Amino acid sequence: MQHFGDRLANRIKELGNPTVVGLDPRLDKIPAFIKERAIKQYGGKNLEAVSASIIVFNVGIIEAIADIVPAIKPQIAFYEQYGHAGLFAYEQTIEYAHKKGMLVIGDAKRNDIGSTSEAYANGHLGLVDVFGTPTATINADALTVTPYLGTDGIKPFTKVCQEQGKGLFILVRTSNPSADEIQGQPVGDHLMDEHVATLVEGWGRDLIGDSGYSSVGAVVGATYPEEAHTLRQLMPNQIFLVPGYGAQGGGAEDVKPCFHENGTGAIVNSSRGIIFAYLKDDKWGEEEYHEAARQAALAMKEDLGQLF
Amino acid sequence: MQHFGDRLANRIKELGNPTVVGLDPRLDKIPAFIKERAIKQYGGKNLEAVSASIIVFNVGIIEAIADIVPAIKPQIAFYEQYGHAGLFAYEQTIEYAHKKGMLVIGDAKRNDIGSTSEAYANGHLGLVDVFGTPTATINADALTVTPYLGTDGIKPFTKVCQEQGKGLFILVRTSNPSADEIQGQPVGDHLMDEHVATLVEGWGRDLIGDSGYSSVGAVVGATYPEEAHTLRQLMPNQIFLVPGYGAQGGGAEDVKPCFHENGTGAIVNSSRGIIFAYLKDDKWGEEEYHEAARQAALAMKEDLGQLF
Repeated sequence: MQHFGDRLANRIKELGNPTVVGLDPRLDKIPAFIKERAIKQYGGKNLEAVSASIIVFNVGIIEAIADIVPAIKPQIAFYEQYGHAGLFAYEQTIEYAHKKGMLVIGDAKRNDIGSTSEAYANGHLGLVDVFGTPTATINADALTVTPYLGTDGIKPFTKVCQEQGKGLFILVRTSNPSADEIQGQPVGDHLMDEHVATLVEGWGRDLIGDSGYSSVGAVVGATYPEEAHTLRQLMPNQIFLVPGYGAQGGGAEDVKPCFHENGTGAIVNSSRGIIFAYLKDDKWGEEEYHEAARQAALAMKEDLGQLF
Repeated sequence: MQHFGDRLANRIKELGNPTVVGLDPRLDKIPAFIKERAIKQYGGKNLEAVSASIIVFNVGIIEAIADIVPAIKPQIAFYEQYGHAGLFAYEQTIEYAHKKGMLVIGDAKRNDIGSTSEAYANGHLGLVDVFGTPTATINADALTVTPYLGTDGIKPFTKVCQEQGKGLFILVRTSNPSADEIQGQPVGDHLMDEHVATLVEGWGRDLIGDSGYSSVGAVVGATYPEEAHTLRQLMPNQIFLVPGYGAQGGGAEDVKPCFHENGTGAIVNSSRGIIFAYLKDDKWGEEEYHEAARQAALAMKEDLGQLF
């Protein structure tokens, strides 16, 4: 069975690029020519046309970046908001990314306990029983998960990761201003996020691969660099998934503490800054949105490449 | 605009029943006659037949309980695991419950920040932009939400609640054994869940209705009765959504501290104990699964009715 931590660490190394591209489609930013075609094809301004617009847009982005970026991170909220038609687009996006050799981190921040947690784990990462036949439905390579329910909420996920070679990224420190309200509260002589970090380190211990990295990673925001430094020490075997670069105000220097000194151990996300790069410079026509995304991804690779 | 807290409090009063039925379909427990028909209709053991089986099963339960139970709580994981076909069943279940006058609490434990949180709020509770037309897609009345990201993760939801007359139940204390790992940690002179309770009380303050209850409620498990008592005092205006009755080991006495002394302020969930009641007594044939559910719901109503 493949090991997610190894697969991701190796792919980052191969491409020399610790970037993940957030595929967070926003209908109002998708080029008009894509939407017009979809509306024509599906006979109106309906949810099927929304779904088709998202799929076509994402396919264009994936084609443009698959040889330079190791992974995509579709944020499921931007699909799920359109109901089942949106979830269909999410599934199709994952399938296409796999065809092009990309890893897929589903950003869903799921959490529950017992059989409910199992259902999420099977659906997003594993196999679901369909009248006796184990079937892959959503089939991402890794999933973001929230820790508020403790071990009971995590074990069903790590079990599937173990069996199917999949991975998790558990929320430890998020990049938003109000993160401190819970994550920054003092618990004994450390902060809550540091307490969670020690839990995450424990949850991932049985899933460490040849690369030295566990298939259980951590989400650590780029907007608290000092805290990131502490968390890096508490979770030496975790790959950090780092939001907050670009649009949320973090730069290359801010994400640096999320890496080990040898330049491994983190993957940095950018969403809007890459997929909607064509809107930020008049030189791009809307038909060139994918080329604009590729150029933005190359610029980010170069920016991060200077760090180590 | 209708007010969710009032709608729920009033409906509980009308029916004299503070129960919510968890609609958590498990394919292996759905009666064979329903599955066989669906497989025939959809030409095989495919995901469409799964979706149809769930819808038919749920419709039977809703028909059987709509005049005695105020609300259903579908756990989205049991639908989502089947991908877009499952989410279609989730949407159809909500639509049918509304037709029968029931309130719907979507149990999704969603959480994120900013525009992502907005997308969840619009999709699950509000209106989504479909090529310029605001459209209801999932359309539940309330949603369970996780607090780990703080105010930034909650505000987009309370905004939609304010505008659309919808509600939230924020996880404060869950019913599982490992809840203490985070929720039970000491923060200053109280526990983390009590700290979260004060945040929830604040988030709900602008959404208090004529009933005295806020549209922002709290999830408080039945398995920590002493802690429930403390939380009841910290959140006087919150309706408590109480899991852990029945299958998770809690009884009527355990849920009592979740209510105010006048017997209002909580709604108690039971899932398996009601919807799969037909499997627990040989007297029921599988074609009577809905009647078995009705009888189980009436027994639960009676059990809770003795409390006050």
